[in-house]
Amino acid sequence: MSDMYETNLDKNQANFTPLSPLSFLKRSAEVYPDRKSIVHGDRVYTWRETYERSIQLASALNKHGIKKGDTVSVLCFNTPEIYEAHFGVPMIGAVLNTINIRLDIDTISYILEHGESKALITDNELSPVVKKALEKLDKKILVIDVDDKLANHANGSGENLGQFNYENFIQEGDKNFEWDLPIDEWQSLALNYTSGTTGLPKGVVYHHRGSYLMALGSVTAFSMPMHPTYMWVVPMFHCNGWGNPYTLTALAGTSICLRYVSAKNLFDAIADHKVSHFGGAPIVLNFIAQATDEEKRDYSHKVNVVTAGAPPPAATLEAVQKMGFDVTHVYGLTETYGHISLCAWQDEWNELSVEEQSKLRSMQGVKFPMMDGLSVMNPETMQEVKNDGEEIGEIMIRGNCVMKGYLKNKEETEKAMSGGWFHSGDLAVMHPNGYIQIKDRSKDIIISGGENVSSVEIENTLYKHPSVLFAAVVAKPDEKWGETPCAFIELKDSNDKVSEKDIISFCKETLAGFKCPKKVVFTELPKTSTGKILKYELRESAKELA
Amino acid sequence: MSDMYETNLDKNQANFTPLSPLSFLKRSAEVYPDRKSIVHGDRVYTWRETYERSIQLASALNKHGIKKGDTVSVLCFNTPEIYEAHFGVPMIGAVLNTINIRLDIDTISYILEHGESKALITDNELSPVVKKALEKLDKKILVIDVDDKLANHANGSGENLGQFNYENFIQEGDKNFEWDLPIDEWQSLALNYTSGTTGLPKGVVYHHRGSYLMALGSVTAFSMPMHPTYMWVVPMFHCNGWGNPYTLTALAGTSICLRYVSAKNLFDAIADHKVSHFGGAPIVLNFIAQATDEEKRDYSHKVNVVTAGAPPPAATLEAVQKMGFDVTHVYGLTETYGHISLCAWQDEWNELSVEEQSKLRSMQGVKFPMMDGLSVMNPETMQEVKNDGEEIGEIMIRGNCVMKGYLKNKEETEKAMSGGWFHSGDLAVMHPNGYIQIKDRSKDIIISGGENVSSVEIENTLYKHPSVLFAAVVAKPDEKWGETPCAFIELKDSNDKVSEKDIISFCKETLAGFKCPKKVVFTELPKTSTGKILKYELRESAKELA
Repeated sequence: MSDMYETNLDKNQANFTPLSPLSFLKRSAEVYPDRKSIVHGDRVYTWRETYERSIQLASALNKHGIKKGDTVSVLCFNTPEIYEAHFGVPMIGAVLNTINIRLDIDTISYILEHGESKALITDNELSPVVKKALEKLDKKILVIDVDDKLANHANGSGENLGQFNYENFIQEGDKNFEWDLPIDEWQSLALNYTSGTTGLPKGVVYHHRGSYLMALGSVTAFSMPMHPTYMWVVPMFHCNGWGNPYTLTALAGTSICLRYVSAKNLFDAIADHKVSHFGGAPIVLNFIAQATDEEKRDYSHKVNVVTAGAPPPAATLEAVQKMGFDVTHVYGLTETYGHISLCAWQDEWNELSVEEQSKLRSMQGVKFPMMDGLSVMNPETMQEVKNDGEEIGEIMIRGNCVMKGYLKNKEETEKAMSGGWFHSGDLAVMHPNGYIQIKDRSKDIIISGGENVSSVEIENTLYKHPSVLFAAVVAKPDEKWGETPCAFIELKDSNDKVSEKDIISFCKETLAGFKCPKKVVFTELPKTSTGKILKYELRESAKELA
Repeated sequence: MSDMYETNLDKNQANFTPLSPLSFLKRSAEVYPDRKSIVHGDRVYTWRETYERSIQLASALNKHGIKKGDTVSVLCFNTPEIYEAHFGVPMIGAVLNTINIRLDIDTISYILEHGESKALITDNELSPVVKKALEKLDKKILVIDVDDKLANHANGSGENLGQFNYENFIQEGDKNFEWDLPIDEWQSLALNYTSGTTGLPKGVVYHHRGSYLMALGSVTAFSMPMHPTYMWVVPMFHCNGWGNPYTLTALAGTSICLRYVSAKNLFDAIADHKVSHFGGAPIVLNFIAQATDEEKRDYSHKVNVVTAGAPPPAATLEAVQKMGFDVTHVYGLTETYGHISLCAWQDEWNELSVEEQSKLRSMQGVKFPMMDGLSVMNPETMQEVKNDGEEIGEIMIRGNCVMKGYLKNKEETEKAMSGGWFHSGDLAVMHPNGYIQIKDRSKDIIISGGENVSSVEIENTLYKHPSVLFAAVVAKPDEKWGETPCAFIELKDSNDKVSEKDIISFCKETLAGFKCPKKVVFTELPKTSTGKILKYELRESAKELA
């Protein structure tokens, strides 16, 4: 560039501000102080209150020694506390680590250890598991209990494990605590663990810049207007609820919390609160399509639904469209802050049959506006596949909503981003119109009820069983859950009387319930001449079993 | 921050892309290749075509030696060429300098000289003025003529001044020319000259980051859905049409070009193209409110209007609201990429009378989501005024949509951004709800028909008249134009027979028509004991004359 445009035209305080989604909360509290921010049962907050409670959380954490670069973990249902943590934790430069509440003791304690958590905010409905996870830690950490009166303690939960109750804790915080945006927009904002190719979860690190752009890019591509009413079905522990705590704050929308997802709860929220938007795994569409007349409620408005994961069956899509739900299919990974592609609707599709529309609607589609690249490539050559809907390659992603990397895992980080693209591990084709469509996942991930399950993790468990010689776990298509884990086992002694039930019970001892195989098949496993198990054949068998 | 979140989590090609509005064009061409991008009379382009033509422009400029950091000027009506230049010029790292087509010979040649333009794309309806402006330049530059068949050559214009006709020029360009995003998002994108406190216009420099965020922030605050139909009333030479070439491209919207703005043209476009959005100076609302039955057309959809500048009168607002126009009032300056505050609507205002609503609607309001700060301060102490709607201070602005600075003017740049805020020069109050409202402009700017006119520039001209002793120019409220320049003149000899007509003719010799006083008053000017002219008193007199 010529000197003319370089001289004396530098960044200064007036013309440069680091991008951070925290800025949205300040603005919404200033511009819409009395608008409803969050509704949870009879708890109703305004933006002024959500801002104040977030600042108080930041201040209280600060008083208890949490500082910039520290990790604060959260194990919560979709309640106001986890929403507030999305702001209160990074307000002091700390990093928010939301954890899947369905994980088992070992995985939770692994995450707390690996992420070096300094504090944990935990719902006391989870106390039986969390108590044991905390006991496994070498060091005692600050624990803050969320005691939600809507919790179900039928399983004997409800024990407070920490030094503080959340409400008392934030009361310690100062409403006038001075917080600031990060100096560097690349600063870490969140740490989200994902099941990858290995059994051990990897810590995916997000930055402020990425979450800011995720929010504005979502608003744009989804045509989201100001002040939507959003129903919380997607857990906020999944990719930070796909970034929606930030998106909704930018729009000063109203969050309707759903602690438990059921057809009745969904319809009640839609009818009572005039829900305009929500996101969820395809299984949620099944709830809706198959709801009984007692569960259904009358409403007359359109509901915009974003669904991620395995594409919902055409029949389900058709049924919910008729009920006033407008479904957009998206794709993304924990490593990409959630959705980075969507099946953008084309006007000319309006002319097609519902069946053809459903087929189109199930494609993973095109990149979001905040992304730089979405392609399908041969991972060896990094050449794009032909856009013929036939040639299979790996989905490659680049742009500002790709993670900083995996925490303390240089090798996997470099591998995942080699050649200047993030390697998704998902196999897909590209259609002539540039839309991508997933054909298979190379990463051995099973998506059950919206949860990622690593087949390798289950296999590792199975191999610990004394009777198992070889084990391979693949996805079995399932009407309710989308997919469930299906285990194929070759026994050391083919006369061994070990049963399906024995194997499942064995898994339940150490794995979270949703990770346990729902089906076990005893058989000689198909293998290559070099002994590699042919998972492709097993997937075909699992499909036939479905 | 702790080391843990710093190690091996750096930027790389996969997870970092410089923000640039050019990325929106690539995406819209890929995702919506066959959707209408621009309509100008019977010229209709698709996104594929707009992308190709922009690339061809970039390639042709490149072939003719234009390179990164060079300035390319544009003097065009709202036609496809200026839209394409918003992409084609920065695609090669050059800087787009759109010039107000109503400027006079001297100012145009000053801008071309000061901005060191290497090329000029100019509509041949402007040939009489542009020819003389080019003759004044020391060096010959590349000139490309736009020969629009919708042009009006009644004034004898239409002479082609350059080496190329635009269409032939871009045909030289290669559709497969490889362009790239800037490596640094701080790279200069545009150069827009503004009339400031002095007669000489200042060159305001924008960067790619700012224009990218302007687009997504506008989408968010205006609740703009995908695929709006936008009518081009705001000239694209005004703050890059407030950033809308970029906003519309992010949304894959359709631009309806209006070469000439009249009530008939407005209604025809609204009815024929189902215009959903447009922006314009308040004078455009007057056109609409006062349209005759012959000019009006039937349509049944809502039209969203953004209006900037002096707030429209309540009666006008009421009239256009009744006609299906939903008006949002915004505020901004050339130095802030256009609008950075808007009068965000509050639900409880729905209960108020139309008169009270109009009063609220005329406030300058609150910051956009992409901005960091909007405040009213005492410029000496940099302390915020009380939010009592009474205490007057200067509007201060900070955030990513504040200019890089003034080109080759370190002193003014530092002055404008002293204390970490951009000093708008506009005087305002802050209401208890945090909304700001302009009370006066300290910069001596008159906004006539949406054009900024510097009173100092007119005064400088008046002082050249042999009979003038003192001259002061202020805004006179005007029903049609919003404001017009009103000159108060103290003659050297009070018996001098110089007339109002003489003075106006004298101004017309060197000033653009819209800058010439519409009213001249001969009087002894009110002054302080130290001889400073009391402009405040003259403004009161001008109001009484209106």
